[in-house]
Amino acid sequence: MSTEKIPYKIYLEENEMPKAWYNLRADMKNKPAPLLNPATHEPMSAKDLAPVFCDELIKQELDDTTPYFPIPDEILDFYKMYRPSPLVRAYCLEKALGTPAKIYYKFEGNNTSGSHKLNSAIAQAYYAKKQGLKGVTTETGAGQWGTALAMACAYFGLDCKVYMVKVSYEQKPFRREVMRTYGASVTPSPSMETNVGRKILAEHPGTTGSLGCAISEAVEKATSTEGYRYVLGSVLNQVLLHQSIIGLESKAALDKYGVKPDIIIGCAGGGSNLGGLISPFMGEKVRGEADYRFIAVEPASCPSFTRGNFAYDFCDTGMVCPLAKMYTLGSGFIPSASHAGGLRYHGMSSVLSQLYHDGLMEAVSVLQTDVFRAAEEFARVEGILPAPESSHAIKVAIDEAMKCKETGEEKTILFGLTGTGYFDMLAYQKFHDGKMDDYVPTDAEINESLDKLPAVD
Amino acid sequence: MSTEKIPYKIYLEENEMPKAWYNLRADMKNKPAPLLNPATHEPMSAKDLAPVFCDELIKQELDDTTPYFPIPDEILDFYKMYRPSPLVRAYCLEKALGTPAKIYYKFEGNNTSGSHKLNSAIAQAYYAKKQGLKGVTTETGAGQWGTALAMACAYFGLDCKVYMVKVSYEQKPFRREVMRTYGASVTPSPSMETNVGRKILAEHPGTTGSLGCAISEAVEKATSTEGYRYVLGSVLNQVLLHQSIIGLESKAALDKYGVKPDIIIGCAGGGSNLGGLISPFMGEKVRGEADYRFIAVEPASCPSFTRGNFAYDFCDTGMVCPLAKMYTLGSGFIPSASHAGGLRYHGMSSVLSQLYHDGLMEAVSVLQTDVFRAAEEFARVEGILPAPESSHAIKVAIDEAMKCKETGEEKTILFGLTGTGYFDMLAYQKFHDGKMDDYVPTDAEINESLDKLPAVD
Repeated sequence: MSTEKIPYKIYLEENEMPKAWYNLRADMKNKPAPLLNPATHEPMSAKDLAPVFCDELIKQELDDTTPYFPIPDEILDFYKMYRPSPLVRAYCLEKALGTPAKIYYKFEGNNTSGSHKLNSAIAQAYYAKKQGLKGVTTETGAGQWGTALAMACAYFGLDCKVYMVKVSYEQKPFRREVMRTYGASVTPSPSMETNVGRKILAEHPGTTGSLGCAISEAVEKATSTEGYRYVLGSVLNQVLLHQSIIGLESKAALDKYGVKPDIIIGCAGGGSNLGGLISPFMGEKVRGEADYRFIAVEPASCPSFTRGNFAYDFCDTGMVCPLAKMYTLGSGFIPSASHAGGLRYHGMSSVLSQLYHDGLMEAVSVLQTDVFRAAEEFARVEGILPAPESSHAIKVAIDEAMKCKETGEEKTILFGLTGTGYFDMLAYQKFHDGKMDDYVPTDAEINESLDKLPAVD
Repeated sequence: MSTEKIPYKIYLEENEMPKAWYNLRADMKNKPAPLLNPATHEPMSAKDLAPVFCDELIKQELDDTTPYFPIPDEILDFYKMYRPSPLVRAYCLEKALGTPAKIYYKFEGNNTSGSHKLNSAIAQAYYAKKQGLKGVTTETGAGQWGTALAMACAYFGLDCKVYMVKVSYEQKPFRREVMRTYGASVTPSPSMETNVGRKILAEHPGTTGSLGCAISEAVEKATSTEGYRYVLGSVLNQVLLHQSIIGLESKAALDKYGVKPDIIIGCAGGGSNLGGLISPFMGEKVRGEADYRFIAVEPASCPSFTRGNFAYDFCDTGMVCPLAKMYTLGSGFIPSASHAGGLRYHGMSSVLSQLYHDGLMEAVSVLQTDVFRAAEEFARVEGILPAPESSHAIKVAIDEAMKCKETGEEKTILFGLTGTGYFDMLAYQKFHDGKMDDYVPTDAEINESLDKLPAVD
């Protein structure tokens, strides 16, 4: 191990940046289950997926044997505008906690989209442009993915149509305005623009929308408009592939100083950040080369890992998308309106679901007031205002560091700080004003939704 | 000159960071004029200033002979959390403009305060803590300084009381909430808490406030409360001293690649960013070691350099502060309510005023719709959403780059990108909706304010 003092921030040089994404599936013994055609329950072929996704992205989606995909130069050039992202040694947090643990976080918030979502957005926009498309459609909840995609599309001159969950559209007018600065059109979902939107509005006139519903609208729009395809910011294999840049950079930075993490922690909604962060480390674990503890942190109000079923389910509310095998609360599950921030998707990446099912990863759920308390503590000592999503990981990193304080163990903890909270100040305000609750769904609520899982052999 | 390809972002290593601030005044042939006691018109002594400012900061304020001040370790440690800031080569902007110019910008927005203001906030909080004070008071306009000070005070465990210009308090509730996250109390100004606030409210019941007025309130509060002092985010010599870190890092990063800028551009409100950015380069110029063009960019709606007088004036509306010799529009000048963002101070740093008066620096004023047009163009290609203030520099950097396109000259342009615009989306929205105007004060308006300048020999 290097004896050099580890700096507060470890930056890789531009020429040390990863040149290829790592495809964890290639090394997994139990591969994630394939997407199924919702009508036939047969695995989706490239041809089946072609009306929805870009051709190159379909190849990435279906490939579970190729370990590395070279990153095209055009994407590398864009990455160089905001990457490598810093790996930060949380000296001030360690001191404030009085813990012997060594805490590192990979900070993905230093770009205008405010999160790691840009890593996949730019890749998806690139492949859409390369295919000669006019534009792409997508959904966004908290707005980070929509902002990232708007930025990526502006860079490549693609049209960008975003369906934004209505409650976020209304509560986050500034997120919407950032997307508009980047030339995207933003529609509150459910909308009257699509069949599925009109149907949902007819059945639930007062609904404030959900991610699953916005996905259905975006997919319908893409498949019914010439020259358009649909893109998604999480859950899919291709997204985890692009997000592996997070883990690859983290590992390269730690390796420079001979540091090996004991525990790796990430927040988990659809799994894009967690899957990306852990991928090269999990690769070593499944290949038997090293061992790590991995912890997925999810909100207690949307607990797919800790209270969901491992089963085939629809990815969207409108049931127009393929079926995916995953930990799910049922495609009709909508988290309580009192839940702030993202991490509100009913399911979870198939890759992560398989790893969790195989016992290679742990999962915990946390209450949102505990999350905001950790966020504020972190902000005051580390100088970064974290996004509510990222703060789930902060909460558990602090918990683990405090266990080290009790036992005296000098464990090394790495967590993903996925983004900043500048557009989440309404949630912070609720927290400061004591108006934030800790609603946890009842078993009856979850079971009602799980009872509607599709029957798949 | 190094033949190595210049990366998109030049980061200094932690051990390459400057260890001392540079005091440009030590090298200036014509020193900036001293602050005067408003009653006697005699230069302010350290004793005169002691009720208002911290002792160490007074020493820095009055010292125009010591060229370097070592940065205390506690401040260096804090700097390491968010510095060195990147010096970015704007390859994408150059390509979009089709210019042979080489454009660099020093990006100070990658911290939660969203701007360069943190560089001086942490220094001022440190010296207040070292003096054993309980807390500090200040004013904030657009909110960047208040946020920075709140962060700095949280880090050192100081109380922080911010008077926020009422119009910003109302239009930027999220800025206020960030300050609250860091434990600061925020009062809309003018308020009923101070004599000067009550007086201004009695005379102008509907006023939305001004920086000059908020300064008066903060100073009164500090001088009338045991264990408190007043701190200021711009204009003062001490602030320019701390902000020299911007220029020192920029110069060190450029020197690594053998790059010498031809033109250095910064936005100018009170002068903190511009003064910091240019300081080591201007030092070379006044010592006769090198030549550079310096351009201060100010809003056409608050044009202190280009339309103000070089004269002694009050720093605040309530006339409780010392007199400073500076380019000023008169301490009663309030920019049009249609003016978005900061850069709304009636005066300008005495250091920069002297340099401008001596012909060592140029100044231009720009219209705000031109500024937002430049901001949007920049955001789309460089992936950073700039603050309105910073976008003044972008506008003129683009203008200069386009002149190079006409002449074919390969000039090297450096500008300061002081911060991000996440809390300025209302202004962006007005711009997108075509509701932003380009109000320019009439000569009569400016003369009315200038007629009230105090008579000083």
